[in-house]
Amino acid sequence: MSLLIKNATLASGKNADVLIEGGSISKIGAVSSRADEKIDATGKIIIPGMINTHTHAAMTLFRGIAEDMELKGWLAAVRKAEILVTPPQIRAGSDLAALEMIKSGTTCFSDMYFHMDEVAASVQDSGMRAVLGYSMVDGGNARGTRESVNEKKMGSELSIAEQFVKDWHGKAGGRITCSIPPHSIYLCSSPLIAKAAELSKKYSCVLHMHLSETRKEVFDCLEKTGARPAYYLDSLGVLSQRLVAAHAVWLTKEEVKLLASKKVSASLNPVSNMKLAGGSAAPMPEMGQSGMNISLGTDGSASNNSLSMFETMKFCALLQKNSRWNATVASAESVFSAATVGGARALGINSGEIAEGKLADLVLLDKKAANLVPAHSILANLVYSSHAGNVTDVIIDGKIVMQERKVLTMDEEKVVQRAQKEAEGLSA
Amino acid sequence: MSLLIKNATLASGKNADVLIEGGSISKIGAVSSRADEKIDATGKIIIPGMINTHTHAAMTLFRGIAEDMELKGWLAAVRKAEILVTPPQIRAGSDLAALEMIKSGTTCFSDMYFHMDEVAASVQDSGMRAVLGYSMVDGGNARGTRESVNEKKMGSELSIAEQFVKDWHGKAGGRITCSIPPHSIYLCSSPLIAKAAELSKKYSCVLHMHLSETRKEVFDCLEKTGARPAYYLDSLGVLSQRLVAAHAVWLTKEEVKLLASKKVSASLNPVSNMKLAGGSAAPMPEMGQSGMNISLGTDGSASNNSLSMFETMKFCALLQKNSRWNATVASAESVFSAATVGGARALGINSGEIAEGKLADLVLLDKKAANLVPAHSILANLVYSSHAGNVTDVIIDGKIVMQERKVLTMDEEKVVQRAQKEAEGLSA
Repeated sequence: MSLLIKNATLASGKNADVLIEGGSISKIGAVSSRADEKIDATGKIIIPGMINTHTHAAMTLFRGIAEDMELKGWLAAVRKAEILVTPPQIRAGSDLAALEMIKSGTTCFSDMYFHMDEVAASVQDSGMRAVLGYSMVDGGNARGTRESVNEKKMGSELSIAEQFVKDWHGKAGGRITCSIPPHSIYLCSSPLIAKAAELSKKYSCVLHMHLSETRKEVFDCLEKTGARPAYYLDSLGVLSQRLVAAHAVWLTKEEVKLLASKKVSASLNPVSNMKLAGGSAAPMPEMGQSGMNISLGTDGSASNNSLSMFETMKFCALLQKNSRWNATVASAESVFSAATVGGARALGINSGEIAEGKLADLVLLDKKAANLVPAHSILANLVYSSHAGNVTDVIIDGKIVMQERKVLTMDEEKVVQRAQKEAEGLSA
Repeated sequence: MSLLIKNATLASGKNADVLIEGGSISKIGAVSSRADEKIDATGKIIIPGMINTHTHAAMTLFRGIAEDMELKGWLAAVRKAEILVTPPQIRAGSDLAALEMIKSGTTCFSDMYFHMDEVAASVQDSGMRAVLGYSMVDGGNARGTRESVNEKKMGSELSIAEQFVKDWHGKAGGRITCSIPPHSIYLCSSPLIAKAAELSKKYSCVLHMHLSETRKEVFDCLEKTGARPAYYLDSLGVLSQRLVAAHAVWLTKEEVKLLASKKVSASLNPVSNMKLAGGSAAPMPEMGQSGMNISLGTDGSASNNSLSMFETMKFCALLQKNSRWNATVASAESVFSAATVGGARALGINSGEIAEGKLADLVLLDKKAANLVPAHSILANLVYSSHAGNVTDVIIDGKIVMQERKVLTMDEEKVVQRAQKEAEGLSA
């Protein structure tokens, strides 16, 4: 299978053809070769598909159930809904998420949740790329009490997470890889976290974890362990290139240096953090200075309530600028890089760039959309002016998944109807 | 001329027909009357058209020319481009802005800039509603020196602004009304500001002014006048229901109370403020507590770089929540209200609500878009989940301006081409 994208405009403003063979980019420039399929990208911008490194896809079903509430009430409302969630609901929510992500130019996402077989099946059918893991929970530092490990619960959680890796790692033609996700330091015991890190080493897969999302998490960790979260994790031996630390807001400069030195990746989730009123902003400039790999995530739809990475890029840049009283931090270039190649690095996927040999996960946008004109800086337009509706075509693993805004892999009407119906079941 | 919108879904979730006669909403509910035109709004959400109370439409041409720069460099770059701008460029930029606004569900905007005849002609042709004024500049508090009024410049500025009102107030079938805009306390002398207020009284029109956008503005005002900006304006006798204070960020609680007691409206511009790294956030909770009328604006495209009011609503809510460490402030309801009826109140226009007797400025959205499902709360979806691409139809003054995403009043291709060409002229 080969696919030739003709005459697309790169973010640099230059036009090029892109030849895709066997799911990867084989040539960029003036390509005259014949291909099985062809897309005329005249009047379209081409970008690497965006990579959402932290979300809970199925939570689309909770979009709008708990609004403008303090964290405690919000958590209670979401947990009440989550407890009763069934596998068919997870599938419906995941399909809805995949549809929303494809339509907004996201080609790959990293998800930690439960009933993950349903999420994996959704990814398989939708044509997306994803890094998936079963989110483990067995206790943790939340209560500020001395740790008493529930060995049975821990064992069962580890076993579910490992089985999921065995079942799905490398499946869907390699589009699905797996992660090991201990939820967080406040919902996981220290042995669970340490064993999770061993599992991620055993399977060479991503260790996906919430880290320092709220001040409370930091204070609770200090109280219980005497150390801030990054040092606590270091003491458990879990800091490595495999770790993707989601949120990473309330870190000291020294913690940033530690994480960077261990090659940990950050997944910043500015929209979710702002909506839940966490305060402040992740130390993105310090992360950049330390050479830490930075990626972006949307978080779940209960706390965002959108899966658009275009929106996340703009929020990320503007929150950084406003927090630092400095418009030069979080440049369009650095944020776009975080949404693409930074995500690829975090997840260990050979994508995020338009370059020969990279996986063909690509997105086309309407260059003539009123909000993307003029083209003084296409990169600035992508980060500061674009919206999901500007995406016209999406290619994942070399296959056309959306063409002229029509998703080819899913029945859009059915996905939306089923999601609405399953969501109504939730609120009952 | 009558228009019947059948079976639309209101933000409340209820379905209704909306009958429009003579540019106004004449009936809401089950309507069986015949009408000249009919829109089947099954599967669509209906909202009042959004009202952007502070922008500089023609600045779309500058989108992307000065990115990620400190305020001083940004101002220099923008001014360098502005000085050379020609009337045809203003027209091209205004047309592009009108196209972008219509496509993103904005039906009315308030603009202060120059070569305003071009902006007015664009509004006339595009079918939009607008409040327009020539932005006056003759000195001010910027330099921290004792005021020396340039009488000639002041007279000429006032005369241009007044002539514009004479020429355009009430034109385009009433869709255009005029404002008197002294730019700001830092670019206008105190006699100019006072005389501008008199003119706005004489013509019963909006007094549109930047206010307390940056800390520097406040400090300069304190140094020069001994008073903070709101008190300084009060001393000039310009605080009244006609005043729309754009930005209104660096206000003390006492200033908010003063402005509220004088019935001044605020136009919050969170995206522009964050992008220029102003720091902090406007005191929206205090404004609400004081009963001050709050509206929203995008500001110009050089500092946003989008005219989407959906984006502005989300930024407004999330910036407030994050700044106050309180997720209950700036609720979806209050922000949506600011974007619609708050804007109408600020501009003295009988719109912003779906109610009998109100002007028929209405917007339809695709209820089945993946990002707007499920419908636990349509209002929350509108503020936190929607994007410009969800807008399907736009009605202004009872006329269909956009139908199924095709703008009927403008040649989209031509508008985009001319804007691109004129913008290339700028950067030369």
